[in-house]
Amino acid sequence: MKITIERAALLRALGHVQSVVERRNTIPILSNVLLRAESGRLSLSATDMDLEVVEVVPAQVAREGKTTAPAHTLYDIVRKLKDGAQVELDASGDRGALTLRSGRSTFTLACLPAEDYPVMSGGPLAHEFLLAANDLKGLIDRTRFAISTEETRYYLNGIYLHAAQSAEVDVLRAVATDGHRLARVDVPLPEGAKGMPGVIVPRKTVQELRKLLDETDQAVRIELSETKIRFDFGDGVLTSKLIDGTFPDYDRVIPAGNDKILDVATKLFAEAVDRVSTISTEKSRAVKLALDQGSLVLSATSPENGTASEEIEVGYQHSPIEIGFNSRYLLDIAQQIEGEDAQFVMADAASPTILRDARDHSALYVLMPMRV
Amino acid sequence: MKITIERAALLRALGHVQSVVERRNTIPILSNVLLRAESGRLSLSATDMDLEVVEVVPAQVAREGKTTAPAHTLYDIVRKLKDGAQVELDASGDRGALTLRSGRSTFTLACLPAEDYPVMSGGPLAHEFLLAANDLKGLIDRTRFAISTEETRYYLNGIYLHAAQSAEVDVLRAVATDGHRLARVDVPLPEGAKGMPGVIVPRKTVQELRKLLDETDQAVRIELSETKIRFDFGDGVLTSKLIDGTFPDYDRVIPAGNDKILDVATKLFAEAVDRVSTISTEKSRAVKLALDQGSLVLSATSPENGTASEEIEVGYQHSPIEIGFNSRYLLDIAQQIEGEDAQFVMADAASPTILRDARDHSALYVLMPMRV
Repeated sequence: MKITIERAALLRALGHVQSVVERRNTIPILSNVLLRAESGRLSLSATDMDLEVVEVVPAQVAREGKTTAPAHTLYDIVRKLKDGAQVELDASGDRGALTLRSGRSTFTLACLPAEDYPVMSGGPLAHEFLLAANDLKGLIDRTRFAISTEETRYYLNGIYLHAAQSAEVDVLRAVATDGHRLARVDVPLPEGAKGMPGVIVPRKTVQELRKLLDETDQAVRIELSETKIRFDFGDGVLTSKLIDGTFPDYDRVIPAGNDKILDVATKLFAEAVDRVSTISTEKSRAVKLALDQGSLVLSATSPENGTASEEIEVGYQHSPIEIGFNSRYLLDIAQQIEGEDAQFVMADAASPTILRDARDHSALYVLMPMRV
Repeated sequence: MKITIERAALLRALGHVQSVVERRNTIPILSNVLLRAESGRLSLSATDMDLEVVEVVPAQVAREGKTTAPAHTLYDIVRKLKDGAQVELDASGDRGALTLRSGRSTFTLACLPAEDYPVMSGGPLAHEFLLAANDLKGLIDRTRFAISTEETRYYLNGIYLHAAQSAEVDVLRAVATDGHRLARVDVPLPEGAKGMPGVIVPRKTVQELRKLLDETDQAVRIELSETKIRFDFGDGVLTSKLIDGTFPDYDRVIPAGNDKILDVATKLFAEAVDRVSTISTEKSRAVKLALDQGSLVLSATSPENGTASEEIEVGYQHSPIEIGFNSRYLLDIAQQIEGEDAQFVMADAASPTILRDARDHSALYVLMPMRV
């Protein structure tokens, strides 16, 4: 192959694919990016065997062909080239090398044969629908913080995406939980998603997908089967294996009978939690919420540090209650609540509490209290 | 003690002193900041036994007194308070606690007795002079990167500051070296500095001093003896022990007979080195400079990565030479050269090379070549 391409276009595409490539690989070719030049375009692919990103960019193709070259090195080189530069990629020699020329710079990189590059089977997936980029961002952003990092609970190491019903309306729902907290977010069910299987999208796929979403506000075409999911951005396609496991019945975790409602200004609350938690021990991060008519006193105590307390005015008209939470979990959730007011729906100091935006119920969070 | 103070003033002072406090201390009181309230002002001190920073800020003092409280915790709390808030600090109780009140927040921190706080002897130091903040910044910025991190060569773990002569002009000179490279910077000798002993200012002191310098463009009063140095900013004073060792005779390292001069555009050169070094092995970081009439070819080779080369036009009128350098060292120095053109003065591929700004000779760098 021999092509000429704009540095900016090449950099953008390499930026997307190289981040899939792990820093250390036992299989050498997995450190490489697959480059394929054909009629006016260059296609770049990278994979870690579970996840594949393919991106296509326009290029002047002098000679069609394909090869694979070290992804991170190639990315670093292109990153350091001058803005606006033209880049020539030439793998025409028979020495198994890719030559990159730009301005007065020349680089020669060791290649591995394109034929050896593992490619995910590209066949059609049974279910297909379009989802607005903003809806997909919302599903990810408001749930990903709750994804478990415990490798033994592999079925919690991702976001559970499925069709559901909320108040008799069909929704596309994302759920993540690590056993201490749960996040559940709904968006209107896109046409074509009805009947889709519930799938668990792995953490790394979520991360890479989120990066790609940063650069678009177009609808994304989603195709999926029980084992695979594909996100098609037009000029870029991410395909990933799914987690082969059963997501727990999360409905059983969401309490239905909680009756103590607390309304609190989101920002004021988050700032107070942040301040008071300065005193919490590094390990527990616990803060105590003491509620009485119209008043919330947040407090923290640690044997090493001392004590902290702060009072804020809130909407609360039930019997007094004291309940403890991990301050980091409270802040994670508060950060996702965009509305002015947050709402707690509690039962007692030992039972799961519901948190949500006081006005927008499309996202719901469940938090287990701590003993304080 | 009991005082009220502006949050912004307290935060700024705590920011300066807390950074001296190590995260882990075997002596508990070294985790604390010493607070002293007296007639309209609060004085804050922190020390690690080698280095002490004292800062004074205006405060409404309701009751004079002193105590010590955990520096990082106090800093974190004040940082999280609302901008514009008033802060009350009260250590009047007899429970050994400091109470901080601000708005509707209350914090109680465990204290240790002020009497136990180690304070550096504050006596007068024999030599004293004023140095413009910009001169001091220049001495630090252009030498600190060359400070050795080898603990066994403790006498190289700082900047050697002394009075010297350059072309028969008296200068205040800073030198740092790690054995691979050397940086030497001169500023005009301030009045009063003549006859000062040569002193080695430790790395941590240099770091803390540089942070304080960020906030001033006033002259700094420097006092020093053979064992101690003090930098007085007016409202803040940094006192430090000096490294008890002999700095090597650096003049012997600076070659006098080099005759091959290379003039190169600093920015162009740095960018080319950065690009080409992408290919260098992580360990050596070597780049080769091949010089011929008017031309410099930079190149790098690594068994894993491949090869890179770039040609730039330069001012060079001597016999061809090939010489290798650590690319990171070249970039460190290039970053300190503010002028458009950098100048290399070389002898051969095995001898130390001089680098400097082609026009401003107040800073001089010596770099050992590498075999390439």
